[in-house]
Amino acid sequence: MNKYRIACIVGSIRKESLNRRLSEAAILLAPPDFAFSRVRIDDLPLFNQDDETNPCDAVSRLKSEIGGANGLLFVTPEYNRSVPGVLKNAIDHASRPYGQSVWKGKPAGILGISSGAIGTALAQQHLRNILSYLDVPAFGQPEAFIQAKEGLFREDGSIGEASRQFIQNWMDCFVSWVKQHAKG
Amino acid sequence: MNKYRIACIVGSIRKESLNRRLSEAAILLAPPDFAFSRVRIDDLPLFNQDDETNPCDAVSRLKSEIGGANGLLFVTPEYNRSVPGVLKNAIDHASRPYGQSVWKGKPAGILGISSGAIGTALAQQHLRNILSYLDVPAFGQPEAFIQAKEGLFREDGSIGEASRQFIQNWMDCFVSWVKQHAKG
Amino acid sequence: MNKYRIACIVGSIRKESLNRRLSEAAILLAPPDFAFSRVRIDDLPLFNQDDETNPCDAVSRLKSEIGGANGLLFVTPEYNRSVPGVLKNAIDHASRPYGQSVWKGKPAGILGISSGAIGTALAQQHLRNILSYLDVPAFGQPEAFIQAKEGLFREDGSIGEASRQFIQNWMDCFVSWVKQHAKG
Amino acid sequence: MNKYRIACIVGSIRKESLNRRLSEAAILLAPPDFAFSRVRIDDLPLFNQDDETNPCDAVSRLKSEIGGANGLLFVTPEYNRSVPGVLKNAIDHASRPYGQSVWKGKPAGILGISSGAIGTALAQQHLRNILSYLDVPAFGQPEAFIQAKEGLFREDGSIGEASRQFIQNWMDCFVSWVKQHAKG
Repeated sequence: MNKYRIACIVGSIRKESLNRRLSEAAILLAPPDFAFSRVRIDDLPLFNQDDETNPCDAVSRLKSEIGGANGLLFVTPEYNRSVPGVLKNAIDHASRPYGQSVWKGKPAGILGISSGAIGTALAQQHLRNILSYLDVPAFGQPEAFIQAKEGLFREDGSIGEASRQFIQNWMDCFVSWVKQHAKG
Repeated sequence: MNKYRIACIVGSIRKESLNRRLSEAAILLAPPDFAFSRVRIDDLPLFNQDDETNPCDAVSRLKSEIGGANGLLFVTPEYNRSVPGVLKNAIDHASRPYGQSVWKGKPAGILGISSGAIGTALAQQHLRNILSYLDVPAFGQPEAFIQAKEGLFREDGSIGEASRQFIQNWMDCFVSWVKQHAKG
Repeated sequence: MNKYRIACIVGSIRKESLNRRLSEAAILLAPPDFAFSRVRIDDLPLFNQDDETNPCDAVSRLKSEIGGANGLLFVTPEYNRSVPGVLKNAIDHASRPYGQSVWKGKPAGILGISSGAIGTALAQQHLRNILSYLDVPAFGQPEAFIQAKEGLFREDGSIGEASRQFIQNWMDCFVSWVKQHAKG
Repeated sequence: MNKYRIACIVGSIRKESLNRRLSEAAILLAPPDFAFSRVRIDDLPLFNQDDETNPCDAVSRLKSEIGGANGLLFVTPEYNRSVPGVLKNAIDHASRPYGQSVWKGKPAGILGISSGAIGTALAQQHLRNILSYLDVPAFGQPEAFIQAKEGLFREDGSIGEASRQFIQNWMDCFVSWVKQHAKG
């Protein structure tokens, strides 16, 4: 394969999202044959099964972007000890109609950052259950439950020294996992 | 207390939702001092933390309706082995800003129906984790993982004979639970 | 009620268990009408359904101690992101035979300590699912995901200054919860 | 690879375990280059961290059998909406001491049977969380939440007609997954 196209799904839509910053910083550590693009989820309607066979443009775009990807990068906060509704809504859209999920078989990695010590661990546990059902293989180790700390990001948006090796290693594992599971 | 006001939250927004029908049928089995009203969740925006201190009308209405309730009735399908995004989105809205959640302390019951044999069991497991964090006490037994079957509903929308005793017993437990935990 | 009898179940059986120390320190903060006794789980056989109607002495003792309690205090580490097998084995024993569970209806609180930052959050999420099924009401807040740190315990085994208020508040909530739910 | 050695771990130790029967019936549908052996878990002591660096014979045997396998087949009932304690105890033993887990990287499949309609779905959800942490890749689809019904097994112990295609397809997926992930 010439180039691995990775769809990056960030679970928060606020402007200064820590998770979006983390996704952008992590991507800098990927090899040149990996191309990431962030999938918009903030303009999707709430999923309504009545509309699933006649999707609006935003939903069609989402499905097309996921469907065309060779791998998935989820970077998400934890809301109320689970996956944010805004992220789950996007997952629901792209999983339907029944039998036409565009998630199926795409290898995935999961990152998450929060200001609390738990660092999104409980959201990730639910997300793994969901991805398992969607037949999205997600690697188990290394887990990345990242707590936001002074110096995590440098001024230019890259990962600071203290966490660089950890995130680089995570990205290397992600790259291997995608290469092992991606379909042409 | 003169009257127990119960906010009913249905996790699907499609027109012919089985779960909405189940909620309406179950409510018929409640005693006269319980008054249920369904909370709209289909017109909420996707939760964006940037807007949480300046909520739109639909969000304010949601918070006001939850905040004014003495108890909560969740009736939800399972989407991708978890809580529907549309339901989680409503939960996220009413839990914010930090420290101002309107869910706190409201006693809850959980019902769910699906066409599959699992009958929403996995969605309910995630929902229970979320409610626990929100300090919403939800009773454990009887569990209600209902599979949609011929004759479950009668033509007038009430519960058919085969399941009436089960749902009546569930409702009786819900009523006791709310009375035990409701604040004035 | 004259005295609330609380069965304390510690999820680790090693000698220097941090969770046992935490349980002992927390108990010191309970009011005088609460009496705690630790339930032995280290001498139980592995649960085998073939033996459930003819339990050995250790199993009978476990059931009798749980059955005679007015409330439950779980203090457990996390093993492999879930409940330790040794704890789950005790839970399984006391839940059987079908219909004769001794857990039913006993109010519970959950504490956990670990050396890692996640502090047993994922084990507690699974434990809450299990307790919900067993019809054991467990309060949701405050959560107690405690990380072992220098000074957590004083030399005499009591909680040090930095965490004393947090654990005292937790214990006060536990006491209220038990009083609200305990049966005579 | 000449032969794929699969360690089969059955989550119940009772004599007439449905899950053991299911494991034996499923194995009959595997190709000739797959060799299965059942791992004993009924003679393990309760895991005690104090003993982990000096394991008894049963624990050493468990670790050696898991360590020597190219893949893992879990076939388990659901106890109290989670993994049986007896299975979790075996998992805990073979995961220790820290850094010496023998589970790491072994591809796995999960089957489960019960008499109830939920068919072990909730136990499997917890097991997937645990395996993910252990870095054991388990395939997501097809899920196998099997309800015990008349005719599931034939008199000779093989799978009956009604379920044969489903289990054969499951086994084919298992075989592919193991071949994709197994190390030499």
